[in-house]
Amino acid sequence: MSGSLAPLLRPRAIAIVGASADLRKVNGRPLKFLLDKQYAGAIYPINPRYDEIAGLACYPDAAAIPGEVDLAIVAVPAAIVPAAIDDLGRKRVRAAVIFSSGFGELGAEGAKLEAELVARARAAGIRICGPNCLGIVNAFDRVMASFGQYADGPTPPGPVAFVTQSGAFGTAIAALARRRDLGLGYFVNTGNEVDVSFAEVMQEVLADERIRVGAGYIEGFKDGVELVRVAEQALALGKPLVLTKVGRTASGARVAVSHTGSLAGEDRVFAGVARQFGMVRARNEEHMLDLVEVFAFCDLPAGDGIGIVTQSGGAGVLMADRAEELDLVLPQLAAATTDEMRAAIPGFGTAANPVDITGQFVSEPQLLERSVAILLSDPNVHVGIVWIQLMDAHVATLLEIFRHIKAAASKPFIVCWVAAPDEALRGLHALGIAVLRGAEPAIDAVAGLCRYAAARRAWVARETMRSPLVSFELAELPLAAGQVGTLAAQALLTAIGVPCLPVHIAHSAEEAARTARAFERPAALKIESPDIAHKTEAGGVRLGLDSEASIRAAYAEIVVNAAARVPHARIDGVAVQPMAPPGVELVIGLQRDAVFGIVVMVGLGGILIEVLRDVVFRKAPVTPAQALAMLDELQARAVLDGVRGKPAVSKAAIADLLVRVSLFGAKHAARLRELDLNPVIAAGLTLYAVDWLLLLDAHHPST
Amino acid sequence: MSGSLAPLLRPRAIAIVGASADLRKVNGRPLKFLLDKQYAGAIYPINPRYDEIAGLACYPDAAAIPGEVDLAIVAVPAAIVPAAIDDLGRKRVRAAVIFSSGFGELGAEGAKLEAELVARARAAGIRICGPNCLGIVNAFDRVMASFGQYADGPTPPGPVAFVTQSGAFGTAIAALARRRDLGLGYFVNTGNEVDVSFAEVMQEVLADERIRVGAGYIEGFKDGVELVRVAEQALALGKPLVLTKVGRTASGARVAVSHTGSLAGEDRVFAGVARQFGMVRARNEEHMLDLVEVFAFCDLPAGDGIGIVTQSGGAGVLMADRAEELDLVLPQLAAATTDEMRAAIPGFGTAANPVDITGQFVSEPQLLERSVAILLSDPNVHVGIVWIQLMDAHVATLLEIFRHIKAAASKPFIVCWVAAPDEALRGLHALGIAVLRGAEPAIDAVAGLCRYAAARRAWVARETMRSPLVSFELAELPLAAGQVGTLAAQALLTAIGVPCLPVHIAHSAEEAARTARAFERPAALKIESPDIAHKTEAGGVRLGLDSEASIRAAYAEIVVNAAARVPHARIDGVAVQPMAPPGVELVIGLQRDAVFGIVVMVGLGGILIEVLRDVVFRKAPVTPAQALAMLDELQARAVLDGVRGKPAVSKAAIADLLVRVSLFGAKHAARLRELDLNPVIAAGLTLYAVDWLLLLDAHHPST
Repeated sequence: MSGSLAPLLRPRAIAIVGASADLRKVNGRPLKFLLDKQYAGAIYPINPRYDEIAGLACYPDAAAIPGEVDLAIVAVPAAIVPAAIDDLGRKRVRAAVIFSSGFGELGAEGAKLEAELVARARAAGIRICGPNCLGIVNAFDRVMASFGQYADGPTPPGPVAFVTQSGAFGTAIAALARRRDLGLGYFVNTGNEVDVSFAEVMQEVLADERIRVGAGYIEGFKDGVELVRVAEQALALGKPLVLTKVGRTASGARVAVSHTGSLAGEDRVFAGVARQFGMVRARNEEHMLDLVEVFAFCDLPAGDGIGIVTQSGGAGVLMADRAEELDLVLPQLAAATTDEMRAAIPGFGTAANPVDITGQFVSEPQLLERSVAILLSDPNVHVGIVWIQLMDAHVATLLEIFRHIKAAASKPFIVCWVAAPDEALRGLHALGIAVLRGAEPAIDAVAGLCRYAAARRAWVARETMRSPLVSFELAELPLAAGQVGTLAAQALLTAIGVPCLPVHIAHSAEEAARTARAFERPAALKIESPDIAHKTEAGGVRLGLDSEASIRAAYAEIVVNAAARVPHARIDGVAVQPMAPPGVELVIGLQRDAVFGIVVMVGLGGILIEVLRDVVFRKAPVTPAQALAMLDELQARAVLDGVRGKPAVSKAAIADLLVRVSLFGAKHAARLRELDLNPVIAAGLTLYAVDWLLLLDAHHPST
Repeated sequence: MSGSLAPLLRPRAIAIVGASADLRKVNGRPLKFLLDKQYAGAIYPINPRYDEIAGLACYPDAAAIPGEVDLAIVAVPAAIVPAAIDDLGRKRVRAAVIFSSGFGELGAEGAKLEAELVARARAAGIRICGPNCLGIVNAFDRVMASFGQYADGPTPPGPVAFVTQSGAFGTAIAALARRRDLGLGYFVNTGNEVDVSFAEVMQEVLADERIRVGAGYIEGFKDGVELVRVAEQALALGKPLVLTKVGRTASGARVAVSHTGSLAGEDRVFAGVARQFGMVRARNEEHMLDLVEVFAFCDLPAGDGIGIVTQSGGAGVLMADRAEELDLVLPQLAAATTDEMRAAIPGFGTAANPVDITGQFVSEPQLLERSVAILLSDPNVHVGIVWIQLMDAHVATLLEIFRHIKAAASKPFIVCWVAAPDEALRGLHALGIAVLRGAEPAIDAVAGLCRYAAARRAWVARETMRSPLVSFELAELPLAAGQVGTLAAQALLTAIGVPCLPVHIAHSAEEAARTARAFERPAALKIESPDIAHKTEAGGVRLGLDSEASIRAAYAEIVVNAAARVPHARIDGVAVQPMAPPGVELVIGLQRDAVFGIVVMVGLGGILIEVLRDVVFRKAPVTPAQALAMLDELQARAVLDGVRGKPAVSKAAIADLLVRVSLFGAKHAARLRELDLNPVIAAGLTLYAVDWLLLLDAHHPST
């Protein structure tokens, strides 16, 4: 289904199916809210039992309604919802929000009813929000198509659209937003999502020019590609998309053959894709609202330089600590700035970043204005944080100072006001200034601001465009499903520019020994079988063989082991390779993710990947810049720069390989299941795939 | 200095030096607060300019005061503070809290004045809190020896003592505590700490039986041993000590020779010692208050099993995620519990932990009471979390339900109430129930509760007592300062039971070759010089030498390299060792920490220690249980259990080695500077120190 969601989100007339005259009930509350908040469109209660509800004419069915209806609110028992949809279809109602529960969430029986509902809605051309949802609040247009607790209170409109898959938690978040004086333009709970999805609603509300920030609470989704599309649209519009997704540590249950597959926990993939497309991830509800706060009030900073002014040295240290944990460095101030600052603040203050102006500013208010101006004038500072606390007796004075600071500031800044009086919060918002209530949350939020700003800059600079800097002809994939033979896979990889260590398939011990003679270094032997993916476990690998005798013996052993341990395996011979030169071990791979399609992975080999699971994912394909960003996200990235006396390796070469592999994956998305290059050895500028495992799905001529 | 701080913290009579008649001024506010809050003791303003202030007789000097004075509040300019102390001394005043700034915090000139102040106070026998502090609030006894913003508002007493090194930040934290309806029995700001330290105040307030929880904000301290003593006392009393210490990521600037030394960032050591002695560390102010909340209201759980009841599946997932991040596992409920739960909750709820009772409980309040009772009855659940949101219209009903739950519960539980109305918070506190406002903070706080409970259990079980399970005779240390020779160090280590790889010091290439002949495996050669600690960097190490020719060549090379790269080094020969067998590489070491004295370290060798700094510290000595806990804190601890086909190693053997090394360090604390066993190779049950570096300080017969 497709088409604009305007009738759902900005209806010009609303019918209420099953409207109750008791305005406290679930089926009475929407009418109360619409009336109380003075919805400007027509409201048509439908209920054969009444002629009138709350002064409005009430209709026996949809057909009896005199005017056109964009949206119907459906609040009748599940069993009669399909009939209600038929009735609305006859009236050509265009959208319905269905509160009723008793569908998919109830198991098999409910799922059957849900399928029937979907079929009727489709036939009638009605878009559905829900069922089993709290509905929609469009605060701009006073559309109160909800029975939830959030609508039952002030709903001041603002530039934030909040879409939630959870009704209960979403309501709590919306209420917290209201307490923080953050206006929600939209509040939408999507419920069972039988038709309209989280992503589709988000796309529609972000397109509304009254919205500047999208916020979402996600419990799970099927179509990651749709979400990526929304994220790209949001980046293009310059509207940040802040998401809380629960299920961070989930996964594990996935059955996969390759390393890449076994490491692709749903959440790790989501984290990578979020970074890739500039989605800002929030840990929890308060973090989400902190991020929304700064996005709603701040311009994007031109760089990552955070400058801090505090009245407490300790708060400054706490913020510096947190910044360092987030891989942000508080820039040193320029010498001229420091001099100017030193002249402006008391002798027992600190003129370096974080600047400590001490409590002195209470008796000398100009000190605050002056120090922030000096800080923001520094070329290394791109965004400011001003930390203060309490000051109940000085709110008016401080607001006046902040008014001046705001008027003069050419760079974004936020106020972190611990234990702030409510009037201070509202006063700062009225001045267009973001205000947070803790030192760490302030850094977390500003880190999100900087990260999003970088993603947006990259977008504008077309760095994130899908224009690969490499090109190659793609070879045809073999038609058979399953594991591709070593030589065939090598040919495919070589064609896309993956440097593979030489390999020869020997069919006798003698042939293996003869092959290895030419290497001038020790050899490795590995069983070659389409039925054996885990060669080591099958006793099918022997390394460091430095004599012909040892090679012959190893050949025999390997074949015997494989036959014994994997009885029905077809043995196609034994792969003979020179031992790889020493270097940094990497694992690079592709995996078909159920949500996002083909994803590309990189990790550092050995213990780092096995024990610490230090890997990074992106949706394929990736650009060179994105590939470099992947390397920067590795916990142990310092290994690439050389440790323990080892030389650095070429990150550019690794990134190039990632780009090529990702393009291969994207082009063969229909058939590629898993690819593992494990290990890839990097030494200086050179790079070798030592082993590779390529798994394909069956070929369907139609795809 | 020593002696009880009762006159400072619980004075029976207070003098105010420099009292102002203007009660809005710094030197007028304490009098106002004392009067407003009805301090029961005598109050004596001292100021020659007045006969009376606010209806109280005012005295020209201390001598004129008719009664005894325990505490003097000093609020005069810094320059005349020493004279004021003299005056108080003549009156035999026992303690003074000095607000005045202009001392050590102002640099050299101020430090001079500070030294004078200390000398006069010492001579007069007066204990000093401050200078440059906001002072003391003892809410129980209405002692308002403070001019800070916190005293300028309600100061309801409660079981929490809060001691802060920062005035500004501390005041903000105290105000946040008040907003959360957490009563502070004590609020103390220690300022420059020229006499009374953070630790001493904490010790004194924890000894007050009206206090159940200690909370502290620390910016830095010199005497870690004093803090450890307070922590031990707190453990013995069963009163949790919650600390926020800023400067988490500090360090780096330390000059050290050994790995252990270079990794001993002040904060990493603090983190280890805090764990060791049951101090509960808070990330920031809100986290600290969350922990204080649960400690103030909850009994300690008997285990780590967290059971959760929510009205939102998503909130449950968010909490499960967070628990997993903190290495806590939500236990599976027993089959009987699950059956009972399934019968009690709606069909679309979840009967497994986290239990989702859905929004249904609004219309069926008994559902909440019933489900929590079932949850807490489960043998695997030791502490419960109940997550709800909003419910403005149902507060009274919910409080009634929680009253019943509390009355019936034999296990601790907390309520996590997102966007709770204020009346709900106060109502729950009145019922003696802890309430948090976010899902993640709730898990973080309960994790702290469980961790502290475990530390306290261990204490009670005497696990943390200093009774080592090993004993050995300590050899005498050599008298010379500096690096101890390889053989001498080996002898010392062998005597304490450290298994060292054999080593022979050769003085000629021939001798080296002859020595290696007996090994039956390749040899390693290392330069032997008291002037070369970093042998590899000096070109002084050659490994894997498998022929006599290569050994002779290596000998020559090593000696030439060392002479060239460290020109004045004394060369005592070349150490010859067999190459170590393969196994898991560890680094174990000792380091003299400036704050905590001798600390012991363990880390996994190679990249993990170099790149990820995956190391754990404890104050020496450690018990076997503490040593095992160190291993459990390693990020890459899974390596010890065997990865990539390698067998597990013996954690018990490693722990035993840590105990022995830590005892060695503790006994030789006066002279030991650094010890590095790097690497220690663990393979199965065996353990070998391959290389060791021992550095001593000069011997002073007096110590």
